[in-house]
Amino acid sequence: MIKRSQVQSAQERAAQMLVQAGITITAEERRNIEVAEFGLGELEKTGLELVVYVNTDRYCAKELILFPRQTCPEHRHPSTAGKPGKMETFRCRWGQVWLYVAGKTSPVRQGRPPAGSEDFYTVFHEISLNPGDQYTIPPDTLHWFQAGDLGAIVSEFSSTSHDESDVFTDPRILRIPEII
Amino acid sequence: MIKRSQVQSAQERAAQMLVQAGITITAEERRNIEVAEFGLGELEKTGLELVVYVNTDRYCAKELILFPRQTCPEHRHPSTAGKPGKMETFRCRWGQVWLYVAGKTSPVRQGRPPAGSEDFYTVFHEISLNPGDQYTIPPDTLHWFQAGDLGAIVSEFSSTSHDESDVFTDPRILRIPEII
Repeated sequence: MIKRSQVQSAQERAAQMLVQAGITITAEERRNIEVAEFGLGELEKTGLELVVYVNTDRYCAKELILFPRQTCPEHRHPSTAGKPGKMETFRCRWGQVWLYVAGKTSPVRQGRPPAGSEDFYTVFHEISLNPGDQYTIPPDTLHWFQAGDLGAIVSEFSSTSHDESDVFTDPRILRIPEII
Repeated sequence: MIKRSQVQSAQERAAQMLVQAGITITAEERRNIEVAEFGLGELEKTGLELVVYVNTDRYCAKELILFPRQTCPEHRHPSTAGKPGKMETFRCRWGQVWLYVAGKTSPVRQGRPPAGSEDFYTVFHEISLNPGDQYTIPPDTLHWFQAGDLGAIVSEFSSTSHDESDVFTDPRILRIPEII
Protein backbone atom coordinates (compact mmCIF):
# COMPACT_ATOMS: atom_id res chain seq x y z
CA MET A 1 0.00 0.00 0.00
CA ILE A 2 1.13 3.51 -0.69
CA LYS A 3 -0.20 6.87 0.43
CA ARG A 4 -1.52 9.39 -2.05
CA SER A 5 1.07 11.89 -0.78
CA GLN A 6 3.88 9.42 -1.54
CA VAL A 7 2.52 8.90 -5.05
CA GLN A 8 2.46 12.66 -5.63
CA SER A 9 5.95 13.10 -4.29
CA ALA A 10 7.29 10.33 -6.55
CA GLN A 11 5.46 11.82 -9.54
CA GLU A 12 7.08 15.20 -8.85
CA ARG A 13 10.53 13.66 -8.58
CA ALA A 14 10.08 11.62 -11.79
CA ALA A 15 8.84 14.72 -13.63
CA GLN A 16 11.92 16.64 -12.53
CA MET A 17 14.17 13.87 -13.83
CA LEU A 18 12.44 14.01 -17.22
CA VAL A 19 13.01 17.77 -17.36
CA GLN A 20 16.66 17.24 -16.48
CA ALA A 21 16.92 14.73 -19.35
CA GLY A 22 15.26 17.12 -21.81
CA ILE A 23 12.21 14.86 -22.29
CA THR A 24 8.95 16.78 -22.63
CA ILE A 25 5.64 15.34 -21.46
CA THR A 26 2.20 16.93 -21.49
CA ALA A 27 0.41 18.24 -18.39
CA GLU A 28 -1.97 15.28 -18.59
CA GLU A 29 0.90 12.79 -18.79
CA ARG A 30 2.48 14.58 -15.81
CA ARG A 31 -0.69 14.09 -13.76
CA ASN A 32 -0.89 10.43 -14.78
CA ILE A 33 2.69 9.34 -14.09
CA GLU A 34 2.28 5.79 -12.82
CA VAL A 35 4.04 4.98 -9.56
CA ALA A 36 4.54 1.21 -9.28
CA GLU A 37 5.23 0.48 -5.65
CA PHE A 38 4.85 -3.30 -5.99
CA GLY A 39 3.27 -3.63 -2.56
CA LEU A 40 6.49 -3.91 -0.57
CA GLY A 41 6.25 -0.50 1.10
CA GLU A 42 9.79 0.49 0.07
CA LEU A 43 9.31 2.56 -3.07
CA GLU A 44 12.80 4.07 -2.94
CA LYS A 45 14.32 0.60 -3.09
CA THR A 46 11.73 -1.45 -5.00
CA GLY A 47 9.66 0.59 -7.39
CA LEU A 48 9.35 2.16 -10.80
CA GLU A 49 7.78 5.28 -12.31
CA LEU A 50 6.22 5.14 -15.78
CA VAL A 51 4.81 7.40 -18.46
CA VAL A 52 2.75 5.30 -20.86
CA TYR A 53 2.80 7.03 -24.23
CA VAL A 54 0.73 4.53 -26.14
CA ASN A 55 -0.53 0.96 -25.67
CA THR A 56 -2.50 -0.37 -28.64
CA ASP A 57 -3.41 -3.95 -29.50
CA ARG A 58 -0.19 -4.06 -31.60
CA TYR A 59 2.54 -2.13 -29.77
CA CYS A 60 3.36 -0.12 -26.69
CA ALA A 61 5.81 2.64 -25.79
CA LYS A 62 6.64 3.97 -22.34
CA GLU A 63 9.24 6.03 -20.56
CA LEU A 64 10.52 4.32 -17.40
CA ILE A 65 12.00 6.50 -14.67
CA LEU A 66 14.10 4.98 -11.91
CA PHE A 67 15.36 6.84 -8.87
CA PRO A 68 18.98 6.26 -7.82
CA ARG A 69 19.48 2.54 -7.15
CA GLN A 70 15.74 1.92 -7.45
CA THR A 71 14.95 -1.64 -8.59
CA CYS A 72 12.20 -3.08 -10.74
CA PRO A 73 11.85 -6.57 -9.26
CA GLU A 74 12.35 -9.84 -11.13
CA HIS A 75 9.48 -10.87 -13.38
CA ARG A 76 8.53 -12.32 -16.74
CA HIS A 77 5.77 -11.74 -19.27
CA PRO A 78 4.04 -15.07 -19.99
CA SER A 79 1.91 -15.81 -23.02
CA THR A 80 -1.69 -14.64 -22.60
CA ALA A 81 -4.82 -15.61 -24.50
CA GLY A 82 -2.78 -17.83 -26.81
CA LYS A 83 -0.43 -15.02 -27.80
CA PRO A 84 3.29 -14.99 -27.03
CA GLY A 85 4.28 -12.93 -23.99
CA LYS A 86 5.40 -9.33 -24.20
CA MET A 87 8.67 -8.72 -26.02
CA GLU A 88 10.38 -5.51 -24.97
CA THR A 89 13.34 -3.35 -25.93
CA PHE A 90 14.90 -1.17 -23.24
CA ARG A 91 16.81 1.84 -24.52
CA CYS A 92 18.69 3.91 -21.95
CA ARG A 93 18.10 7.62 -22.50
CA TRP A 94 19.69 9.14 -19.42
CA GLY A 95 21.68 7.90 -16.42
CA GLN A 96 22.62 4.26 -16.19
CA VAL A 97 20.72 1.03 -15.70
CA TRP A 98 21.84 -2.52 -15.10
CA LEU A 99 19.59 -5.15 -16.57
CA TYR A 100 19.69 -8.76 -15.37
CA VAL A 101 18.36 -11.57 -17.52
CA ALA A 102 18.45 -15.35 -17.58
CA GLY A 103 21.81 -16.63 -18.83
CA LYS A 104 25.37 -17.04 -17.61
CA THR A 105 25.78 -15.37 -14.22
CA SER A 106 28.13 -12.38 -14.47
CA PRO A 107 30.92 -12.94 -11.94
CA VAL A 108 31.24 -9.23 -11.12
CA ARG A 109 28.02 -7.24 -10.92
CA GLN A 110 27.29 -3.56 -10.40
CA GLY A 111 23.74 -3.91 -9.09
CA ARG A 112 22.47 -5.98 -6.22
CA PRO A 113 19.03 -7.20 -5.12
CA PRO A 114 17.34 -4.95 -2.54
CA ALA A 115 18.27 -5.91 1.00
CA GLY A 116 15.78 -8.36 2.47
CA SER A 117 14.54 -9.54 -0.93
CA GLU A 118 17.59 -11.52 -2.06
CA ASP A 119 15.66 -14.80 -2.13
CA PHE A 120 13.46 -13.54 -4.94
CA TYR A 121 16.22 -12.67 -7.40
CA THR A 122 17.42 -15.63 -9.42
CA VAL A 123 18.92 -14.34 -12.72
CA PHE A 124 22.25 -12.54 -12.75
CA HIS A 125 23.46 -12.11 -16.31
CA GLU A 126 24.28 -8.39 -16.31
CA ILE A 127 23.77 -6.00 -19.20
CA SER A 128 24.96 -2.47 -18.46
CA LEU A 129 23.06 0.21 -20.38
CA ASN A 130 24.30 3.76 -20.76
CA PRO A 131 22.54 6.44 -22.87
CA GLY A 132 22.11 5.14 -26.42
CA ASP A 133 22.49 1.50 -25.41
CA GLN A 134 19.57 -0.89 -25.76
CA TYR A 135 18.66 -4.54 -25.24
CA THR A 136 15.70 -6.64 -26.36
CA ILE A 137 14.21 -9.14 -23.90
CA PRO A 138 12.45 -12.14 -25.47
CA PRO A 139 8.98 -13.14 -24.25
CA ASP A 140 8.63 -15.04 -20.99
CA THR A 141 12.24 -14.39 -19.94
CA LEU A 142 12.99 -13.58 -16.30
CA HIS A 143 14.52 -10.11 -15.84
CA TRP A 144 14.99 -7.33 -13.34
CA PHE A 145 16.77 -3.99 -13.46
CA GLN A 146 18.32 -1.41 -11.20
CA ALA A 147 19.39 2.19 -11.80
CA GLY A 148 22.87 3.49 -11.08
CA ASP A 149 23.69 6.19 -8.56
CA LEU A 150 22.06 9.02 -10.56
CA GLY A 151 18.93 7.11 -11.50
CA ALA A 152 17.91 6.32 -15.05
CA ILE A 153 15.42 7.08 -17.78
CA VAL A 154 14.72 4.19 -20.14
CA SER A 155 12.48 4.11 -23.21
CA GLU A 156 10.58 0.86 -23.46
CA PHE A 157 9.41 -0.19 -26.92
CA SER A 158 7.35 -3.38 -26.87
CA SER A 159 4.46 -5.47 -27.99
CA THR A 160 1.17 -4.77 -26.20
CA SER A 161 1.44 -4.41 -22.41
CA HIS A 162 -0.74 -6.54 -20.13
CA ASP A 163 0.81 -5.55 -16.79
CA GLU A 164 -1.76 -7.52 -14.83
CA SER A 165 -0.38 -10.74 -16.39
CA ASP A 166 3.21 -10.19 -15.24
CA VAL A 167 4.59 -13.01 -13.12
CA PHE A 168 6.92 -11.90 -10.30
CA THR A 169 9.37 -14.20 -8.58
CA ASP A 170 8.51 -12.59 -5.23
CA PRO A 171 5.03 -13.81 -4.18
CA ARG A 172 4.58 -10.73 -1.96
CA ILE A 173 4.47 -8.42 -4.98
CA LEU A 174 1.37 -6.70 -6.26
CA ARG A 175 1.84 -5.12 -9.71
CA ILE A 176 -1.24 -2.93 -9.42
CA PRO A 177 -0.70 -0.84 -6.28
CA GLU A 178 -3.28 -0.15 -3.61
CA ILE A 179 -3.36 3.54 -2.84
CA ILE A 180 -4.65 4.52 0.61
CA MET B 1 19.40 9.10 -57.08
CA ILE B 2 21.59 10.61 -54.42
CA LYS B 3 25.36 10.93 -54.16
CA ARG B 4 27.25 9.27 -51.35
CA SER B 5 28.59 12.70 -50.33
CA GLN B 6 25.03 14.04 -50.01
CA VAL B 7 24.07 11.09 -47.84
CA GLN B 8 27.07 11.71 -45.58
CA SER B 9 26.29 15.41 -45.33
CA ALA B 10 22.66 14.70 -44.40
CA GLN B 11 23.77 12.11 -41.84
CA GLU B 12 26.09 14.67 -40.25
CA ARG B 13 23.35 17.28 -40.09
CA ALA B 14 20.82 14.83 -38.62
CA ALA B 15 23.36 13.70 -36.02
CA GLN B 16 23.95 17.31 -34.99
CA MET B 17 20.21 17.84 -34.55
CA LEU B 18 20.03 14.78 -32.30
CA VAL B 19 22.87 16.16 -30.18
CA GLN B 20 21.06 19.50 -29.97
CA ALA B 21 17.92 17.68 -28.76
CA GLY B 22 19.88 15.72 -26.15
CA ILE B 23 19.20 12.37 -27.81
CA THR B 24 22.14 9.96 -27.66
CA ILE B 25 22.78 7.39 -30.36
CA THR B 26 25.63 4.91 -30.69
CA ALA B 27 28.51 5.26 -33.15
CA GLU B 28 27.04 2.41 -35.19
CA GLU B 29 23.61 4.07 -35.31
CA ARG B 30 25.36 7.29 -36.35
CA ARG B 31 27.03 5.52 -39.28
CA ASN B 32 23.74 3.90 -40.29
CA ILE B 33 21.45 6.95 -40.23
CA GLU B 34 19.06 6.30 -43.11
CA VAL B 35 18.67 9.14 -45.59
CA ALA B 36 15.37 8.71 -47.48
CA GLU B 37 15.62 10.86 -50.56
CA PHE B 38 12.52 9.41 -52.24
CA GLY B 39 14.05 9.65 -55.71
CA LEU B 40 13.03 13.25 -56.42
CA GLY B 41 16.52 14.74 -56.21
CA GLU B 42 15.47 17.43 -53.75
CA LEU B 43 16.39 16.06 -50.34
CA GLU B 44 16.15 19.44 -48.60
CA LYS B 45 12.50 19.75 -49.67
CA THR B 46 11.34 16.13 -49.95
CA GLY B 47 13.19 13.75 -47.68
CA LEU B 48 13.54 12.24 -44.25
CA GLU B 49 16.36 11.01 -42.01
CA LEU B 50 15.83 8.00 -39.76
CA VAL B 51 17.47 6.10 -36.93
CA VAL B 52 15.86 2.67 -36.65
CA TYR B 53 16.21 1.53 -33.05
CA VAL B 54 14.42 -1.79 -33.38
CA ASN B 55 12.16 -3.53 -35.90
CA THR B 56 10.96 -6.94 -34.76
CA ASP B 57 8.09 -9.05 -36.10
CA ARG B 58 5.91 -7.42 -33.40
CA TYR B 59 6.88 -3.75 -33.06
CA CYS B 60 9.19 -1.06 -34.34
CA ALA B 61 10.71 2.15 -32.96
CA LYS B 62 12.55 4.86 -34.85
CA GLU B 63 13.69 8.42 -34.47
CA LEU B 64 12.69 10.57 -37.45
CA ILE B 65 14.76 13.69 -38.15
CA LEU B 66 13.42 16.40 -40.45
CA PHE B 67 15.40 19.41 -41.60
CA PRO B 68 13.64 22.80 -41.56
CA ARG B 69 10.52 22.58 -43.76
CA GLN B 70 11.57 19.15 -45.03
CA THR B 71 8.58 17.02 -46.08
CA CYS B 72 7.91 13.30 -45.92
CA PRO B 73 5.62 12.83 -48.93
CA GLU B 74 2.07 11.50 -48.81
CA HIS B 75 1.77 7.76 -48.41
CA ARG B 76 -0.11 4.95 -46.70
CA HIS B 77 0.77 1.57 -45.24
CA PRO B 78 -1.46 -1.08 -46.81
CA SER B 79 -2.10 -4.53 -45.40
CA THR B 80 0.60 -7.03 -46.31
CA ALA B 81 0.57 -10.82 -46.24
CA GLY B 82 -2.93 -10.81 -44.79
CA LYS B 83 -1.95 -8.60 -41.86
CA PRO B 84 -3.33 -5.10 -41.28
CA GLY B 85 -1.07 -2.28 -42.45
CA LYS B 86 1.38 -0.53 -40.18
CA MET B 87 -0.14 1.49 -37.34
CA GLU B 88 2.12 4.26 -36.10
CA THR B 89 2.30 6.82 -33.32
CA PHE B 90 4.27 10.01 -33.94
CA ARG B 91 5.54 11.76 -30.84
CA CYS B 92 7.27 15.10 -31.31
CA ARG B 93 10.45 15.30 -29.25
CA TRP B 94 12.01 18.53 -30.51
CA GLY B 95 11.05 21.32 -32.92
CA GLN B 96 7.66 21.27 -34.57
CA VAL B 97 5.96 19.08 -37.15
CA TRP B 98 2.69 19.40 -39.01
CA LEU B 99 1.01 16.12 -39.80
CA TYR B 100 -1.65 15.86 -42.49
CA VAL B 101 -4.10 12.98 -42.54
CA ALA B 102 -7.33 12.05 -44.29
CA GLY B 103 -10.28 13.94 -42.81
CA LYS B 104 -11.82 17.38 -42.86
CA THR B 105 -9.51 19.80 -44.68
CA SER B 106 -8.15 22.41 -42.27
CA PRO B 107 -9.03 25.83 -43.72
CA VAL B 108 -5.81 27.45 -42.49
CA ARG B 109 -2.65 25.37 -42.71
CA GLN B 110 0.91 25.97 -41.57
CA GLY B 111 2.63 23.57 -43.96
CA ARG B 112 2.40 23.34 -47.71
CA PRO B 113 3.26 20.68 -50.29
CA PRO B 114 6.71 21.10 -51.84
CA ALA B 115 6.64 23.35 -54.91
CA GLY B 116 6.17 21.34 -58.09
CA SER B 117 4.64 18.34 -56.29
CA GLU B 118 1.28 19.83 -55.34
CA ASP B 119 -0.65 17.36 -57.48
CA PHE B 120 0.49 14.48 -55.31
CA TYR B 121 -0.80 15.82 -52.00
CA THR B 122 -4.48 15.08 -51.39
CA VAL B 123 -5.12 15.06 -47.61
CA PHE B 124 -5.11 18.29 -45.63
CA HIS B 125 -6.43 17.68 -42.13
CA GLU B 126 -3.69 19.34 -40.08
CA ILE B 127 -2.40 18.13 -36.72
CA SER B 128 0.26 20.38 -35.22
CA LEU B 129 2.73 18.57 -32.98
CA ASN B 130 5.02 20.33 -30.55
CA PRO B 131 7.36 18.54 -28.10
CA GLY B 132 5.32 16.12 -25.97
CA ASP B 133 2.43 15.98 -28.45
CA GLN B 134 1.62 12.75 -30.25
CA TYR B 135 -0.85 11.30 -32.73
CA THR B 136 -1.64 7.75 -33.80
CA ILE B 137 -2.28 7.05 -37.49
CA PRO B 138 -4.52 4.04 -38.23
CA PRO B 139 -3.39 1.46 -40.83
CA ASP B 140 -3.81 2.26 -44.52
CA THR B 141 -4.52 5.96 -43.88
CA LEU B 142 -3.00 8.56 -46.22
CA HIS B 143 -0.64 10.96 -44.43
CA TRP B 144 2.28 13.29 -44.97
CA PHE B 145 4.25 15.57 -42.68
CA GLN B 146 6.44 18.63 -42.77
CA ALA B 147 8.77 20.16 -40.19
CA GLY B 148 8.55 23.75 -39.02
CA ASP B 149 11.26 26.37 -39.50
CA LEU B 150 13.69 24.77 -37.02
CA GLY B 151 13.19 21.19 -38.20
CA ALA B 152 11.84 18.42 -36.02
CA ILE B 153 12.70 15.21 -34.23
CA VAL B 154 9.84 12.73 -33.94
CA SER B 155 9.78 9.36 -32.19
CA GLU B 156 7.84 6.80 -34.17
CA PHE B 157 6.36 3.87 -32.23
CA SER B 158 4.63 1.37 -34.49
CA SER B 159 3.80 -2.14 -35.52
CA THR B 160 6.43 -3.84 -37.68
CA SER B 161 7.83 -1.69 -40.52
CA HIS B 162 7.75 -2.96 -44.10
CA ASP B 163 8.96 0.20 -45.84
CA GLU B 164 9.08 -1.50 -49.23
CA SER B 165 5.28 -1.93 -49.07
CA ASP B 166 4.51 1.78 -48.59
CA VAL B 167 2.23 3.24 -51.25
CA PHE B 168 3.05 6.81 -52.25
CA THR B 169 0.58 9.12 -53.97
CA ASP B 170 3.38 10.44 -56.20
CA PRO B 171 4.27 7.73 -58.74
CA ARG B 172 7.75 9.21 -59.20
CA ILE B 173 8.74 8.26 -55.68
CA LEU B 174 11.17 5.48 -54.79
CA ARG B 175 11.15 4.61 -51.08
CA ILE B 176 14.44 2.74 -51.23
CA PRO B 177 16.95 5.26 -52.59
CA GLU B 178 19.53 4.60 -55.26
CA ILE B 179 22.92 5.85 -54.13
CA ILE B 180 25.39 6.70 -56.89
